[in-house]
Amino acid sequence: MRREEVEQLQAEAAEFLSKVDIGISEQEQKSIEVADFGLNDIRNVGLEIVLYENNDRYCAKELILFPRQMCPQHRHPRVNENNPGKQETFRCRWGEVYLYIEGVATPNPKAVVPDKYRKHLSVWREIVMRPGDQYTIKPDTLHWFQAGDRGAIVSEFSSTSIDELDVFSDPNIKRVPELE
Amino acid sequence: MRREEVEQLQAEAAEFLSKVDIGISEQEQKSIEVADFGLNDIRNVGLEIVLYENNDRYCAKELILFPRQMCPQHRHPRVNENNPGKQETFRCRWGEVYLYIEGVATPNPKAVVPDKYRKHLSVWREIVMRPGDQYTIKPDTLHWFQAGDRGAIVSEFSSTSIDELDVFSDPNIKRVPELE
Repeated sequence: MRREEVEQLQAEAAEFLSKVDIGISEQEQKSIEVADFGLNDIRNVGLEIVLYENNDRYCAKELILFPRQMCPQHRHPRVNENNPGKQETFRCRWGEVYLYIEGVATPNPKAVVPDKYRKHLSVWREIVMRPGDQYTIKPDTLHWFQAGDRGAIVSEFSSTSIDELDVFSDPNIKRVPELE
Repeated sequence: MRREEVEQLQAEAAEFLSKVDIGISEQEQKSIEVADFGLNDIRNVGLEIVLYENNDRYCAKELILFPRQMCPQHRHPRVNENNPGKQETFRCRWGEVYLYIEGVATPNPKAVVPDKYRKHLSVWREIVMRPGDQYTIKPDTLHWFQAGDRGAIVSEFSSTSIDELDVFSDPNIKRVPELE
């Protein structure tokens, strides 16, 4: 193909893509995971998760964050010789999300965190993510994130998820608590 | 949390999600892969691909198919002892796509394929995919697919992509041809 033809097709493809919604079925809605990490304060600390696929090789999810909702600080530890821990790629689809990772602390970060949760946060290198932005988190490194004032949607592509193994910095957290 | 509270949050999350578009940046548009498989007949045989991430553990893409555009029959062979071949999960986001896999042939399949390509197709078990439908292709198994009359958008979540290793049934195909 000629370069101009490729460019024309790329423009058509992008136009196509812009028409697409991320919709889910009624049945999938009923299986959205509402994770409050056992803190019973879902509007401040929590995640809503649509799990598309999780097998022994890869995983894909949508993360829905309500306004200023926060996913608390954690890491995905090494599992064994063949698995150095979960690696994950976040792609912001809507809204704004503030991601914090290990490294030099960002002055005046955008996250707004109540003191009782703030004391368990130790990494403050800020990555501001807007629609189309992507970031990959290395295995076994600390991270946490909070949505901006309008909330956020984030696609997560990763290696296998094994939530029970996640290590949270706040000792009050249970990743998989029971329903009341 | 109480069950009713969880259901309320699920409904809010689904409402949130329905507002989201799959948008890409101008820079990403320029890097859309337009794959014609060396056949120089892109409107009939080809794929437009947005590659989000491809690392040594997982891969994520959007596949854009123009009306009746077809991805020709191929398989992802075993790579080595630790890699039985690429495994991939398709999730239809828009339009309709007809996926063909190994198994009992479907009578009156929906695909419409010119004879010169049809002769290289041997698997005819049909999976009709509409928005929200998902299907996972086992490693090293033959498959091909065609979009319906309006085209289709398909999210692909998978293990690592190594396109050069793909084995196509049509000997005229080159997965990664040069531009003219």
